Amino acid sequence: MLLDQTRLPAETVEVRLETWQEVADAIRTMVVRGAPAIGIAAAYGVALAAARSGADDLGTLRDDVSRAGAGLAQTRPTAVNLTWAVTRMRARADAPHRDPAGLREALRREAEAIHAEEVARCHQIGGHGAELLRAGAQVLTHCNAGALATGGYGTALGVIRSAHRRDPSLHVWVDETRPLNQGARLTAWELREEGISATLITDSTAGWLMAQGKVDAVITGADRIARNGDAANKIGTYALSILARAHTLPFYVAAPTSTVDPGIATGEDIPIEHRRPDELGTAVPEGFGIYNAAFDVTPAANISAIITEHGVRRPPYAFG
Amino acid sequence: MLLDQTRLPAETVEVRLETWQEVADAIRTMVVRGAPAIGIAAAYGVALAAARSGADDLGTLRDDVSRAGAGLAQTRPTAVNLTWAVTRMRARADAPHRDPAGLREALRREAEAIHAEEVARCHQIGGHGAELLRAGAQVLTHCNAGALATGGYGTALGVIRSAHRRDPSLHVWVDETRPLNQGARLTAWELREEGISATLITDSTAGWLMAQGKVDAVITGADRIARNGDAANKIGTYALSILARAHTLPFYVAAPTSTVDPGIATGEDIPIEHRRPDELGTAVPEGFGIYNAAFDVTPAANISAIITEHGVRRPPYAFG
Repeated sequence: MLLDQTRLPAETVEVRLETWQEVADAIRTMVVRGAPAIGIAAAYGVALAAARSGADDLGTLRDDVSRAGAGLAQTRPTAVNLTWAVTRMRARADAPHRDPAGLREALRREAEAIHAEEVARCHQIGGHGAELLRAGAQVLTHCNAGALATGGYGTALGVIRSAHRRDPSLHVWVDETRPLNQGARLTAWELREEGISATLITDSTAGWLMAQGKVDAVITGADRIARNGDAANKIGTYALSILARAHTLPFYVAAPTSTVDPGIATGEDIPIEHRRPDELGTAVPEGFGIYNAAFDVTPAANISAIITEHGVRRPPYAFG
Repeated sequence: MLLDQTRLPAETVEVRLETWQEVADAIRTMVVRGAPAIGIAAAYGVALAAARSGADDLGTLRDDVSRAGAGLAQTRPTAVNLTWAVTRMRARADAPHRDPAGLREALRREAEAIHAEEVARCHQIGGHGAELLRAGAQVLTHCNAGALATGGYGTALGVIRSAHRRDPSLHVWVDETRPLNQGARLTAWELREEGISATLITDSTAGWLMAQGKVDAVITGADRIARNGDAANKIGTYALSILARAHTLPFYVAAPTSTVDPGIATGEDIPIEHRRPDELGTAVPEGFGIYNAAFDVTPAANISAIITEHGVRRPPYAFG
């Protein structure tokens, strides 16, 4: 069961996915989005593939699981949580099992474990990150790194939730986050549900707020973090990191270690997804070219701290 | 007659304005927008007020003109071209006239003169500015500072038009320009009509393009320039100036001297218009707070050159 994020905030519609292919479509079309959330969804997708497989021997079932895992891992390129979760599910499938039923049950439990662990990590991130925000802080965030983007609670919004529990005078500036408006649609919705004071701005207003002294810190999530701390996140995050530095404001990234890719040294190796031009909407002259990179990479040098479930890391970063 | 800019690019609809109040409404609702264009529209509005006034003596007619001028000048606060044009029209009204018919005729001609001079200035700006762009340059622009925003030809787009005539290999990156999408709707439309190679991006993509070396220069218009060169322009311009500096790219402002306000020393005194929250669109949770500043101020220190009809000025600026 997934809450269809493409229809928020106008409608809260739950969709029931019956096959791993439906899970893959839901990830591709952003019914579910956010790096940790799509990792969790992919894990359930693998478990679903096993549950629905007609295989009656372990070998055939493992083949079906492997095929589903490969399909799910290919749905979106940037967030490493997808391959992280699929790799973990496949390792669980390859472990010894008594029979197909045992393997199916093990994969269901593994997906539930991934989900529960990711939620726990968000709460830990929230606790660590809240220490970084002073009372009455004005915090700017981009896109949605909230409960919707994770298994629950959120990464950047987890920090904001935890900080708000200590100090309700916190105020959040929410970037609209074009082209899909995850800030306006999703972050605004979460913050209103939570009763956290917040104001929406267009993405290009962030710099002007900083110039006026109305921002104390910037905090975002991440889709993939290289060993050196370079972090891919929603397009516009890089510009915010430059603006924060120009105004000597801290720029924080909050993410579970499932977002760290130990296989790459720097952000140069992070694949950047380019999405369909028509995501920008209809008010463009027909046939006009559109460049729609969904992510950018913020160099580690621009990141004041990276908050994971293990605590607050400062540069130089050395993840592994 | 005005081309209704709120309906572009989907429809090209001309509206016929019969009274100065209709002109004021057209400025307020952005049927016509862009600092030089609203100055010109206000000048015609004053001429229209005189033409439609039932006054049969010079004193009463001047009162009617004065009232219309005051009303037109108040429609939008940031662009100084509005008060510049109205002041000039009122001065013309206050000059000696033979009779009411003579005054009406003089005001019509003054409005036409303002219009023609502003177009001429754009062509001069274009010629001066084109010298700043190297062959094959990739130029980023924000909002619409084109023919639609002026009497014709454009300021920032005037520079781009002139540069393109010398070197058709120029490429333009067009910022969408939230919340009213003047880049996506108007600049894209103008560039396509002109056959200039261009690509649309979301506002928050500009920094990432710069990081990838895909931008050689940024050029925008202005709504008001202080004596020291601080320049108000569409929200997001300030952030672009910071991003340009961080990537050691030139940041140019193109504007006629009608946009210079000799009455103010620095940008701190420029009034910033805040517009209705619902301009951002409907996909926001109901009642969620929105901060919708329509302009920001770029400090002179971030502006590599200001291009007026008189030539290219470099810092330190001293307009007067």
